[in-house]
Amino acid sequence: MKSIAPTERTKVQRLPQRGEYDRETIYAILDEAFVCHIGFVIDGEPVMIPTGYARDGDRLIVHGSQASRLMRNLAEGVPVCVTVTILDGLVLARSAFHHSMNYRSAVIFGRAHCIESAEEKTEALRLLSEHIVPGRWDDVRQPTPDELKVTLVLSLSLAEASAKIRRGPPVDDRDDYDLAVWAGEVPLETIARAPIADPQLKSPAEVPAYARNYRRPKKS
Amino acid sequence: MKSIAPTERTKVQRLPQRGEYDRETIYAILDEAFVCHIGFVIDGEPVMIPTGYARDGDRLIVHGSQASRLMRNLAEGVPVCVTVTILDGLVLARSAFHHSMNYRSAVIFGRAHCIESAEEKTEALRLLSEHIVPGRWDDVRQPTPDELKVTLVLSLSLAEASAKIRRGPPVDDRDDYDLAVWAGEVPLETIARAPIADPQLKSPAEVPAYARNYRRPKKS
Repeated sequence: MKSIAPTERTKVQRLPQRGEYDRETIYAILDEAFVCHIGFVIDGEPVMIPTGYARDGDRLIVHGSQASRLMRNLAEGVPVCVTVTILDGLVLARSAFHHSMNYRSAVIFGRAHCIESAEEKTEALRLLSEHIVPGRWDDVRQPTPDELKVTLVLSLSLAEASAKIRRGPPVDDRDDYDLAVWAGEVPLETIARAPIADPQLKSPAEVPAYARNYRRPKKS
Repeated sequence: MKSIAPTERTKVQRLPQRGEYDRETIYAILDEAFVCHIGFVIDGEPVMIPTGYARDGDRLIVHGSQASRLMRNLAEGVPVCVTVTILDGLVLARSAFHHSMNYRSAVIFGRAHCIESAEEKTEALRLLSEHIVPGRWDDVRQPTPDELKVTLVLSLSLAEASAKIRRGPPVDDRDDYDLAVWAGEVPLETIARAPIADPQLKSPAEVPAYARNYRRPKKS
């Protein structure tokens, strides 16, 4: 199935022309970014955690500490709302009213499930690591059984997901196009600077290419 | 009062050494970023909106359309959780387990209030505009009474807020420092590219300096 059927929750209500439901679009946003915000409810009140994630096929993977109360709550399978937002630019219109931002965002509703077996946990952590810093996993000391035990690894189905996208120039009121005001977009991008070596690095190890040339591939 | 007394909700539970409660620290994060995620609860389920904001003294200002069901819900004063996250870098440790990110984040709990009078609304919208693109407001067509009417402007007190910050190199297990693995930080930064003029620009207006040289001042 190419598209994810919008549900009452994922159907974009406000500015429906910005809503997109095909898998490719949603996956491209999830594959380009690597930080999400997870919102859920504790005692009737909203809470939110920013955290890293990876996509594994039709599910999202996140991890955290067994010592975290919020993570333990998530692991119980409470309803969650996950948002991934890529900010692409500031949209400068001719009127204050039509100022906007260009962005690509994905929203997922669902319930997280705990990944239990050490083998599956390790594989999920590898995917997480390779999503955020491709190439790093094979260079580092692997998780020990004790480290796996104190790590919660959760998966969330992407069955109920949607994207919302704005691109392009401002859209002004017809009469405003005659105003002598500059209008357009200021593109924004997150870039990596030169790596900073750990001062405690013992041997003068060469900076690996994945750190030296770190960049997120533009997926859409 | 310099510090915001942590409440049960804002006290950083997990890795408490990363929690900060002084106003200067929280304000600096809020003043550098301009996109927040607002989480709240509808029918017992979590929902979340990414949106622009500005700080006005000890309150946060957001706005949205009167036509947005989510915004109207917020305007009713339901409990909200607002998160602002600045990602500063990837922390590459010698073990998979100690990989981390450097970030500065702020969390605010509270209830939003509607700003009602046209005068206060206009001033709040000016602050929002000047926070996101300083210098823009005076160049553009100002909001009309009808535009103000369809715009919801909300304020949220910063009384219940906290910050969580991680900086610096990885922290590895003692034995791992002997491993011949490069370790350190890959700094990340959001930058602006050259402005793209609206193709419908009639006169060849000069790109204003605030768009040509757009950058977020590093506040902390």
